[in-house]
Amino acid sequence: MSNELQPIKVGLIGLGTVGGGTVSVLQRNAEIIARRAGRRIEITAATARDLKKTRPFSTAGIELVENPNELVARPDIDIVVELIGGVDLAFDLVVAALESGKHVVTANKALIALRGNELFDIAQRHGRIVAFEAAVAGGIPVIKTTREALAGNQVQWLAGIINGTCNYILSAMYNDGVEFADVLKEAQDLGYAEADPSFDIDGIDAAHKLTILASIAFGIPLQFERTYVEGITGITALDIDYATKLGYRIKHLGIAKQREDGIELRVHPSLVPHNQLLANVEQAMNAVMIQGDAVGPTLYYGAGAGAEPTASAVVADIVDVTRALTVDPESHVPHLAFQAGKLADLPILAMDEVETAYYLRLSARDKPGVLADVTRILGGLGISIEAINQQEPDTQNDWVSVVILTHQVKEKAMNQAIEEMQALDDILEPVVKIRMETLS
Amino acid sequence: MSNELQPIKVGLIGLGTVGGGTVSVLQRNAEIIARRAGRRIEITAATARDLKKTRPFSTAGIELVENPNELVARPDIDIVVELIGGVDLAFDLVVAALESGKHVVTANKALIALRGNELFDIAQRHGRIVAFEAAVAGGIPVIKTTREALAGNQVQWLAGIINGTCNYILSAMYNDGVEFADVLKEAQDLGYAEADPSFDIDGIDAAHKLTILASIAFGIPLQFERTYVEGITGITALDIDYATKLGYRIKHLGIAKQREDGIELRVHPSLVPHNQLLANVEQAMNAVMIQGDAVGPTLYYGAGAGAEPTASAVVADIVDVTRALTVDPESHVPHLAFQAGKLADLPILAMDEVETAYYLRLSARDKPGVLADVTRILGGLGISIEAINQQEPDTQNDWVSVVILTHQVKEKAMNQAIEEMQALDDILEPVVKIRMETLS
Repeated sequence: MSNELQPIKVGLIGLGTVGGGTVSVLQRNAEIIARRAGRRIEITAATARDLKKTRPFSTAGIELVENPNELVARPDIDIVVELIGGVDLAFDLVVAALESGKHVVTANKALIALRGNELFDIAQRHGRIVAFEAAVAGGIPVIKTTREALAGNQVQWLAGIINGTCNYILSAMYNDGVEFADVLKEAQDLGYAEADPSFDIDGIDAAHKLTILASIAFGIPLQFERTYVEGITGITALDIDYATKLGYRIKHLGIAKQREDGIELRVHPSLVPHNQLLANVEQAMNAVMIQGDAVGPTLYYGAGAGAEPTASAVVADIVDVTRALTVDPESHVPHLAFQAGKLADLPILAMDEVETAYYLRLSARDKPGVLADVTRILGGLGISIEAINQQEPDTQNDWVSVVILTHQVKEKAMNQAIEEMQALDDILEPVVKIRMETLS
Repeated sequence: MSNELQPIKVGLIGLGTVGGGTVSVLQRNAEIIARRAGRRIEITAATARDLKKTRPFSTAGIELVENPNELVARPDIDIVVELIGGVDLAFDLVVAALESGKHVVTANKALIALRGNELFDIAQRHGRIVAFEAAVAGGIPVIKTTREALAGNQVQWLAGIINGTCNYILSAMYNDGVEFADVLKEAQDLGYAEADPSFDIDGIDAAHKLTILASIAFGIPLQFERTYVEGITGITALDIDYATKLGYRIKHLGIAKQREDGIELRVHPSLVPHNQLLANVEQAMNAVMIQGDAVGPTLYYGAGAGAEPTASAVVADIVDVTRALTVDPESHVPHLAFQAGKLADLPILAMDEVETAYYLRLSARDKPGVLADVTRILGGLGISIEAINQQEPDTQNDWVSVVILTHQVKEKAMNQAIEEMQALDDILEPVVKIRMETLS
């Protein structure tokens, strides 16, 4: 049985934002992750610059190690997770981990964009995996998608909103009509921008991510130094206003396009038609559009940064490595995501038990008292009304349409209410009921 | 070297729309797929109900076999691809393939939703893979994403537009203000709806897909019979109109939601706030929103049906199986998607060579002749103008803003034009240049 396998032991370098998110997710979801991965995943040891710092998550059960070089060499660790950022120290630690036989998971976009070519050579020589889904677009699985799900395609181009700080600032400039410098200040106060924001607003961070995506999409070496980079500091409220009037949004995009004579690789602000999905990606959210010759246009949207969204990608990589390390066929990627024998016996609820909001349309006789009857029925069943709207009366007839939006309620109560309404003399036709979802 | 491995040999059951797309994609992209998979992928044999039928793709090099039972038992085939649809015959053939040691790739949502539990048991006993990415949402990798990329998450809910016919009809009703029956007729004429459309418009097809997604998301057995199903035949132009006025779109959604007491599993029309991304998925496109406890809201968008989008998912599954069958570490999923040593030496183009459209803003003296000078410069460099827009003059000054949108042109020509414009006496400040992307 797969659950008798030894747990996979993780060594964590870095206990900052993403490190903390990774600890939290692995702890909170330990049981469901084990059902999916076929083995438990444990953080055996961790290291950080300042081990005495108070942190907003528990490190109970994790051995804290002073020296990262010691951590990467420990024989009791299977996977090293590198979450310290920066290039040179991270590179040395990842290489040491690979040389000592570990697989590596990293969220470090600069490391991969600048030294990935060397790193993958070394990993290859040692037959080890370096997984880096979290390096691009946080929790959105664009690496896995480009590398695996679109493997049958010639990628023709991709375009992405891949820096949340830039998108937050441009969204706020658009919504509030204010200038760049004012929004930047606000973004810094809210934690959406760093104290030194140049890495984000000058486009470097987006260029790191674009470099990685383009390499995977087109099968070319990582070439950060050949990527054109322009940030958003030159965008004014005036240009956003003019663009809006012409039907466009201004977004900061990373674009990679295959042409017959080579590849365009560029990061800069762009006007995008306002009805495009990418134009409607707001606040700090990210999205990447990928056009393949077989699949056509596709888009992937989600949080591109933050503790737990990024940890979601880190943990997915850990699960991938775990599944790859577990050679028996039962423990490969299971058909239904969970290991055989590990499916749950959760009940599927009857429709009566489902809770949603509702749109109702009633055809009512145009006379006093009908609305009072209807609202009395709804109130009596505990159904609260969000909006009620009597339409213009039909000139040919003596009836009106009444549209009601309700708050969430169980389907059973709503069906009861509809039955009672239809029993009223002044309700002339079956009540139209359409459910409403707010999707949040 | 990985490219010295024997090709993977595929046996194809079904040469209809998706079968044809699969043949086309595997042939057209054979070289790039081999660079990614580490081995060539060949269609060795195929079978179809009527082998004499004229088809819009070449079957050169593929042995055509009368009897599908013979095909699934052939010792020279590694992967059987089942693309005939229907449940019982497909089930028998897939079981026979698994029992004879083949891995299976299928696009058959009814087969998986109705008999997947049995099928995966049999596959498990024989240590074989049944891959079915193409069964849900065509080319959008929602199976892989839910199963692998979100493996660290508790999925809280998912909601998807997973039937292109329903979305096409509802989009057309919204755009043209027409009734269901009229759009259905048009959709049938255009090939977006079947001659017998009930499978789509009554919600059965969406319910098959939702059954599969929910199982993978929540780790429960496939339970199509417990899924609530409602189609779109009751939606009227009047309700779409009222919903629009209230700020909503009506979309046909499949929804699965985990609650403390069980799981909601339901397919029906829903009002969705008009500014949500899902509300803006138009025509026959599909999209699935998945909310995980760590990653937050994510969305996946693309073509949910059609020959090549579906083939994209079929081929991705074939590549996945190929990579899994290829045990040497070099041929696992490669770091940069392409096998080591198989990266291409494509040039990255200089920014001067990049072609885009442009937004330009000029601060010009408010006097005759300036626009003529500017358009002469653009025309002289072969830059054609899409729109030119002189803004209200600044009341305090004697200058105006002129906004110009151009068609696509090389950056080099545009920079030359800007230099010439800035040399004019009547252009008062540096020209603002922002690139424009149409993303199609």
